[in-house]
Amino acid sequence: MNKNSIQLQEYMKNEKIDMIYMDDPTAVAYFTNFDSNPHERIVAYVIAQEDEFLFVPSLEYAEAKEQSNVEKIVTYTDDEDPWKIISENGHRIAPTIQKVSVDEKTLTVERWFKLQQALSSETDSTEWDDISQVVEQMRVVKTDEEIKKMIRAGELADEAIQIGINLLEEGITELEIVAQIELEMKKRGVTEMSFSTLVLFGEHAANPHGNPGDRKLRNNEFVLFDLGVIYEGYASDATRTVAFGEVDEEKQKIYEIVLEAQITAQKAVKPGMRAGELDLIARRVIEDAGYGEYFTHRLGHGIGKTAHEFPSINGSSDTILEPGMCFSIEPGIYIQGDVGVRIEDCVYVTETGCEPFTLLDKELTTIIK
Amino acid sequence: MNKNSIQLQEYMKNEKIDMIYMDDPTAVAYFTNFDSNPHERIVAYVIAQEDEFLFVPSLEYAEAKEQSNVEKIVTYTDDEDPWKIISENGHRIAPTIQKVSVDEKTLTVERWFKLQQALSSETDSTEWDDISQVVEQMRVVKTDEEIKKMIRAGELADEAIQIGINLLEEGITELEIVAQIELEMKKRGVTEMSFSTLVLFGEHAANPHGNPGDRKLRNNEFVLFDLGVIYEGYASDATRTVAFGEVDEEKQKIYEIVLEAQITAQKAVKPGMRAGELDLIARRVIEDAGYGEYFTHRLGHGIGKTAHEFPSINGSSDTILEPGMCFSIEPGIYIQGDVGVRIEDCVYVTETGCEPFTLLDKELTTIIK
Repeated sequence: MNKNSIQLQEYMKNEKIDMIYMDDPTAVAYFTNFDSNPHERIVAYVIAQEDEFLFVPSLEYAEAKEQSNVEKIVTYTDDEDPWKIISENGHRIAPTIQKVSVDEKTLTVERWFKLQQALSSETDSTEWDDISQVVEQMRVVKTDEEIKKMIRAGELADEAIQIGINLLEEGITELEIVAQIELEMKKRGVTEMSFSTLVLFGEHAANPHGNPGDRKLRNNEFVLFDLGVIYEGYASDATRTVAFGEVDEEKQKIYEIVLEAQITAQKAVKPGMRAGELDLIARRVIEDAGYGEYFTHRLGHGIGKTAHEFPSINGSSDTILEPGMCFSIEPGIYIQGDVGVRIEDCVYVTETGCEPFTLLDKELTTIIK
Repeated sequence: MNKNSIQLQEYMKNEKIDMIYMDDPTAVAYFTNFDSNPHERIVAYVIAQEDEFLFVPSLEYAEAKEQSNVEKIVTYTDDEDPWKIISENGHRIAPTIQKVSVDEKTLTVERWFKLQQALSSETDSTEWDDISQVVEQMRVVKTDEEIKKMIRAGELADEAIQIGINLLEEGITELEIVAQIELEMKKRGVTEMSFSTLVLFGEHAANPHGNPGDRKLRNNEFVLFDLGVIYEGYASDATRTVAFGEVDEEKQKIYEIVLEAQITAQKAVKPGMRAGELDLIARRVIEDAGYGEYFTHRLGHGIGKTAHEFPSINGSSDTILEPGMCFSIEPGIYIQGDVGVRIEDCVYVTETGCEPFTLLDKELTTIIK
């Protein structure tokens, strides 16, 4: 049983929760150390006040046994009813099932109904509630061990962007650079990027979520890299925008504004402040420069076992920053059909401020070839 | 409005459904042509009997406008309440909201509650039901146009496996081959693999869902490739196992059993038959050879916009096969710590049988280097 599970059982005893069911793969990994991608099959973690089991398709048994720290591994085959097996084993580990919690943020309506049906007998008046905020609160503050992994994930992201920068030359396509970066990461043992690697040229970068394609690099335009890796179950995420050749003054100005917003916000991070305030600090820099309408997204998002998790760093976020919280600071300016600039570091909050996971230079880099 | 949406509106009129809400990215793409990966943000398709809108984060507006065929695109920023905006626009496109359908297989409990709260006024007695089976039924039978894309996706999968086979040499690692395959695919314009590419050596392949790693290739062992690409929004998925050097007789025998099971099942496909029967046909071959306990998963799964979708091809599946249905036929034998063999083609059902999307030779290939 890992320490996260022990902490969860304490909470269950206090709140008189008899059972928690979770089937989000990252949550399962957080509590059991078993990382999986079950597609439409079910991998679930079921915990009672004094016991627990990990539920996996039988074809994942060997890996679950090897990776997880849960002693009781319950399996099912493709032609068995998983809910019947969950119910039988659930009743075995919990003396009564009066109160059950699920993660409403990730559980689907269909599975919720099936679980309810499976666990409730006719005389039952089982009470159901949501554990998602409790789990979020546990996951949002990272331990030193977790931060160590994220620092390594950040180093690899720095390296990946540097590899991309080194590849820039007229005529190369966005996808070719993506492919080379991912190849080099795999050579370093990275089995998974933390999201689809973005390499976007010129006006292509004006879509914050654009897709790399056959667009060829031309002289005198920006190149935006936004990428991250998964290292031992933890994600990195960083963005750099560099100039390939000289870009015009207007574009340089946009870069400087984004940079000032990014640096100002990163310097402002303090435990005890509202996350929303941080968004406003960066936004004010961009608004004061007259580009407010072109900063079309929130300042950032939490990061940890996935590249996007709690908390959201937007103007209306009331989350209070605490040491150990990890999130991105990524202002941008996007003018459709013309230019997109974003600069992003993810940071972890310390007792006095914050430290970034990625260290590549943020001053405007101009590549002349 | 695309033809899938028109068909859905017909159904809504018959069933007196006032509104359908969907936020699964592949379903949204199926009905709107807009492919996205919104992470924790909401991209949703909301359809009424006579109108529709696509709901996207404001930073995806430009891409949604360009790709989708929905005229009304409604956006929200990160600090707005998306549910309020969905409710306002929902009431605008539907004269009354008495009956609402959602896709219970993909919708989370949290979003379902928020949607209920947003759409229901205090005097409302809105009825809620599930549209997932209707959407599955629509999606399960592919049009000629969809099959054409899947044939191209299959050709690329064949090519990818062939690239992998050509790379085999003593000492190369699984991840190096994965990386090279994905690099070559990107050069051909493939932006996304349909799932994590598997290249597994020797006893590593005994875990059907094993992860490629630093394992080095040795002489006289099997290599298993399981991969697919996304081509114009449609997936391929194929598995081949080849021998690097001579493998012993027991392993050759296992290969021949799996091959016979695969070919027997593929030949048996006929419209009108139960999917479950197909699983049993393949399973019987492996059982009769004495390896039944080592075939630890179902025979196959549906494929289309994703690599794993409805229907499941397992012993208890009552789905009746129809022309245009697409699924995998992938028997395997896995002996822990020793050997894993799987052979897989995905096929589409025709009027008289089925045709595979992938055409690489299935006879045992031995690579001598």
